[in-house]
Amino acid sequence: MKTPSSTDLAWLGEHAAAHLPAQVRLRADGPLTGTIGSEIDRLRSLAPGVPGSLTLLDLPQARASTLDDAPFEELAAAGEEAYALRSRGDGSDRGDDSAGDASSARLEVIGGGARGLLYGFYAVVLGLAPAPSGAWTIHSPGNSIRMLDHWDNMIVHPAMGQVERGYAGGSLFYEDGELREDLTRVEHYSRLLASVGINRVAINNVNVHAREATLLTERLGSVVRLAEIFRAQGIAVFLSVSFASPITLGGLATSDPLDEGVQAWWRRVADAVYAAIPDFGGFVVKADSEGQPGPFAYGRDHADGANLLARALAPHGGEVFWRAFVYDHRQDWRDRSTDRARAAYDHFAPLDRRFDDNVIVQVKHGPLDFQTREAVSPVIGAMPTTRLAVELQVTQEYTGQQKHVCYLAPWWSENLRFPSGEDDAPTMAQIAAGSAERPGGMVAVSNVGDDEFWTGHPLAQSNLFALGRLAWDWTADADSILDEWISATFGVDQAVRSTLRELLAESWLLYESYTAPLGVGFMVRPGHHYGPDVDGYEYTPWGTYHFADRDGIGVDRTVATGTGYAGLYPEPWASVYESVDTCPDELLLFFHHVPYTQRLHSGKTVIQHIYDSRADGYERVLQLRPRWQQLAGLVPGPLHERVTTLLIEQERSAGEWRDQLRTYFHRASGIADETGRPIY
Amino acid sequence: MKTPSSTDLAWLGEHAAAHLPAQVRLRADGPLTGTIGSEIDRLRSLAPGVPGSLTLLDLPQARASTLDDAPFEELAAAGEEAYALRSRGDGSDRGDDSAGDASSARLEVIGGGARGLLYGFYAVVLGLAPAPSGAWTIHSPGNSIRMLDHWDNMIVHPAMGQVERGYAGGSLFYEDGELREDLTRVEHYSRLLASVGINRVAINNVNVHAREATLLTERLGSVVRLAEIFRAQGIAVFLSVSFASPITLGGLATSDPLDEGVQAWWRRVADAVYAAIPDFGGFVVKADSEGQPGPFAYGRDHADGANLLARALAPHGGEVFWRAFVYDHRQDWRDRSTDRARAAYDHFAPLDRRFDDNVIVQVKHGPLDFQTREAVSPVIGAMPTTRLAVELQVTQEYTGQQKHVCYLAPWWSENLRFPSGEDDAPTMAQIAAGSAERPGGMVAVSNVGDDEFWTGHPLAQSNLFALGRLAWDWTADADSILDEWISATFGVDQAVRSTLRELLAESWLLYESYTAPLGVGFMVRPGHHYGPDVDGYEYTPWGTYHFADRDGIGVDRTVATGTGYAGLYPEPWASVYESVDTCPDELLLFFHHVPYTQRLHSGKTVIQHIYDSRADGYERVLQLRPRWQQLAGLVPGPLHERVTTLLIEQERSAGEWRDQLRTYFHRASGIADETGRPIY
Repeated sequence: MKTPSSTDLAWLGEHAAAHLPAQVRLRADGPLTGTIGSEIDRLRSLAPGVPGSLTLLDLPQARASTLDDAPFEELAAAGEEAYALRSRGDGSDRGDDSAGDASSARLEVIGGGARGLLYGFYAVVLGLAPAPSGAWTIHSPGNSIRMLDHWDNMIVHPAMGQVERGYAGGSLFYEDGELREDLTRVEHYSRLLASVGINRVAINNVNVHAREATLLTERLGSVVRLAEIFRAQGIAVFLSVSFASPITLGGLATSDPLDEGVQAWWRRVADAVYAAIPDFGGFVVKADSEGQPGPFAYGRDHADGANLLARALAPHGGEVFWRAFVYDHRQDWRDRSTDRARAAYDHFAPLDRRFDDNVIVQVKHGPLDFQTREAVSPVIGAMPTTRLAVELQVTQEYTGQQKHVCYLAPWWSENLRFPSGEDDAPTMAQIAAGSAERPGGMVAVSNVGDDEFWTGHPLAQSNLFALGRLAWDWTADADSILDEWISATFGVDQAVRSTLRELLAESWLLYESYTAPLGVGFMVRPGHHYGPDVDGYEYTPWGTYHFADRDGIGVDRTVATGTGYAGLYPEPWASVYESVDTCPDELLLFFHHVPYTQRLHSGKTVIQHIYDSRADGYERVLQLRPRWQQLAGLVPGPLHERVTTLLIEQERSAGEWRDQLRTYFHRASGIADETGRPIY
Repeated sequence: MKTPSSTDLAWLGEHAAAHLPAQVRLRADGPLTGTIGSEIDRLRSLAPGVPGSLTLLDLPQARASTLDDAPFEELAAAGEEAYALRSRGDGSDRGDDSAGDASSARLEVIGGGARGLLYGFYAVVLGLAPAPSGAWTIHSPGNSIRMLDHWDNMIVHPAMGQVERGYAGGSLFYEDGELREDLTRVEHYSRLLASVGINRVAINNVNVHAREATLLTERLGSVVRLAEIFRAQGIAVFLSVSFASPITLGGLATSDPLDEGVQAWWRRVADAVYAAIPDFGGFVVKADSEGQPGPFAYGRDHADGANLLARALAPHGGEVFWRAFVYDHRQDWRDRSTDRARAAYDHFAPLDRRFDDNVIVQVKHGPLDFQTREAVSPVIGAMPTTRLAVELQVTQEYTGQQKHVCYLAPWWSENLRFPSGEDDAPTMAQIAAGSAERPGGMVAVSNVGDDEFWTGHPLAQSNLFALGRLAWDWTADADSILDEWISATFGVDQAVRSTLRELLAESWLLYESYTAPLGVGFMVRPGHHYGPDVDGYEYTPWGTYHFADRDGIGVDRTVATGTGYAGLYPEPWASVYESVDTCPDELLLFFHHVPYTQRLHSGKTVIQHIYDSRADGYERVLQLRPRWQQLAGLVPGPLHERVTTLLIEQERSAGEWRDQLRTYFHRASGIADETGRPIY
């Protein structure tokens, strides 16, 4: 690894180190205590820390200590990942650091378990400790499952590259078809994940190619090495596996889930994995989706498939994450009766009650595929007795590919807060979180690669950070998370903070404004998905259409005249979406085919919205770079330069979006832009 | 090589062998006599031959023989590639082959030189010998240059594959980054080429990648081996070279054509090549085109660049083929003043008189890029003192990619016969052929790969055959060439002949009918160029637009209101193309932007033509397969099966073209199809 001075440490560098009080006492046993100790040493080498003290205790030590007013029972009940925290002032001004050895604040953390203590420690490092009050607060995650998926290939894929939908260079894990020799950066990555509460990671692409399939068998040693690194941060390792493994790896004639030979094969394989990795997490599976093998070939369903693997893992406590991203990717655009948005619902909702207890059905937050804007998936809410995980995409496949600034937490937050029905109906996040009996949570596709800034666009680190924070607490405010990230990563300089806030806080809405209009989605170049191509997917088998013609645009998903998709929602949403009058503007074209002259709630016509939002968005993009230039000298030079280069590309690309969208729809509609701005 | 019985020998198999008379006398010296002798033996092993005799003589032997009535002086004047042929009956019926040893026809061939004798021999084998008359005829090529370019890579290119724009498997020459060990198929390929008169071949991609660049230096041994094989058939071998070679291979700091070190480097390299291959042909260069390096980087022009290489080759008699396929591939679609169709003209016409005598400027037949239909290139005709070669594309990049039946000779023929002006103005072919002082000719991109049928689609062999025949004689009739090919390849069964004629003769017009309308071009999927995508290139940097909107379609290339391109032609064409009234229907949208309601000369509106031609074309495609099924058992089984499979794909693809084009233009125009056929 490069020396700290030349390496980007993301949010666990000098500014985080500066949050660590000068005096730290660590009194704990347990498997992660060594991790905390090393991390204290590492941070101390980066910055001296603030005046004050931090005491870290495990529950037994705390009970045995003088902290007899701590909420021991409550903490124990909150579980192994919880921690209790108290901040007490000593009367001196916290801002006054001239007092040398004298403490200005005393922080006390008690871990509910090994991971709880680790999370409490990182909370202090990330500056999340509350102002001194003397009162204990208990912190525990809102989701049991807080997971990152890596779509890394060991061998560079000819079309998809080494990291599928990766925009940050090659794989952090693999090089030249094997696990890297030097895994120092993976160590730091695992720290970054644990510091924001991630507790599970899948280490290979869900599209499992031949080489990567062997991680399950002959290359298990590589998994052992990665598991060791992640274990030190309390993170369990998962493998993406191919449903056809009994055939391709085992030499069997079938992978039929009801075949006893197949069942025995999976049991043997699982036994071998757990013999090598006793705390192995389990499997992630993409089956019968976009060409991946699955149970359909044998006339079985997804529950049969998932339970096959679940039963092999169950004796060891392992889990199966079974993706609900299943649709017909050989759809005929001429057939208007098929609606890809319905697919996950139609496949999975009827299977509720059929899945074993250690199966988690992993559902994308929207019914399509991580678009800049789409409705929430009706699957979440339709499977009350099934463990669920909401899948989000940190990697910016459709949101600027880490070339555009796009802070995604507000978009995720909007989805997580979506109420599933009237009044006190649970939110999407609450449904996913499940219950103590059926715990669920959140899974996301990582945006990290071997790029020196981890995420290609240095500011995209904010998305990785925010994902962890929202997985821990879905009620957290996106702006507050942004502030936390800025402070831990760039420190407390007010100019830096306010500039970064300005650049990032509304960047998702900005990205939306100059790209695909009003929830229509998928106006991207086929294959790589970067840049505009209005008709790029219009006549393809992928099931993603907008039906724009000379008169109007949008997909009729109503019950009355369309695909009936709107009717899959509980009330009030079924009614809200069904009617053009009540459907929110930003989803209008997702649910309705309307004339260009349709008035939005904003008062504008659809066509004028298309014209204005693109042109206004572009103008706002032009304001980003001058603002960023003001930070020259205030953030690390190479990082400043990288962002500058990317802002130039964002300007070019936003201009392309603006001009292509405006021209396309002007050619189609023949309606002039009221503002008279140029259309080519 | 596979044994003859299991190998497809194309047009030099048993049916060709059957043309060879039972008695053959070969009396000649010279370098190719051994080739003819072996070929006689090879053919004899395939079929016994027809009754009769063939006498093959070189000019000295003929003069010394009893053939004192032969046109010796005329033949000598016709050159080394010419031959004289006479066919005499002996009174018996040619159709009666029951006479055992008795001859029914006596054929006599005298070669003007070594290649002339070879070509005369192959003419007999291909069944081109005239009916018995007793009169001598002299045959000589209409073009000095009859060349095939191979766009083969040694290493499989991640995007382009091993053969760029190749649709017949991998490379015939290379495997795993090196020349193949077994070159037996290359031997047969060289026979096939020589039999139709090809005399030059370039053996690597004009987009020269790193490995292929080394054919010029460290891998010259591979070129030596290929040259040996092609030499036996009178074919000179050329290399595509990178203009940046002095830098990339030579380690120089520049490849400036006016730099003395660069000039010396090219001389040294050329000297070394000719020391190893004394009859080496020369270089093919794509410079300053689609990202390839060239003289522009140094403020020099194409003449400077071409002459640099020409002067290194001149002492050895070598030639430079310098491609005129130069345009701005980073064009801005918003800029309507730039017209890619003008580019080659604007770059090259001003350079006439600037090129050395051993430079041949290689010009694509049309101004764009081998579209199904486009105007002829105005460059041909604009450079009267420059040696030219017209470039055609045998590989079906834009014409069905050897999945669709598409016999291209009628299209080539139409271009070659295009008169450059009023009355007796020379045709495109005549201009390209040049004069004795400035000989030119034809170059084409091959459609051959390591596919067992050579060309992917077995019927696409007809294009390779026809290319050679048209390069030899541009006045040859496309239908007659088709008959020659059928007879040599499939024999004389009448059912076979008439079915193949039906399938092939008008297949190019059929392909045009269901693809891009009225000369508009480029409505293909970007990148691979297969299948429809009306807007695929519409907003790209490639300079290929149709400007379709709700009211009309087409590119205004008039002088009056458009890009002025029509004015680059001599009269009458400048006037013919300038006016909507006189512009031929099939090029209307190439030259004019017209409303959908514009009436064609055919009486139909443009929109109805779009609807009808697509739907009618599809209906005609559906008639191909039943017709082909009638040949089951009459042509080799594997070949029949391959064509059947491809016809199914042609039906699917033609249906996709029909439906997508009809729907796109119905959405745009809002005008109903008068015939009421379904629009999706």
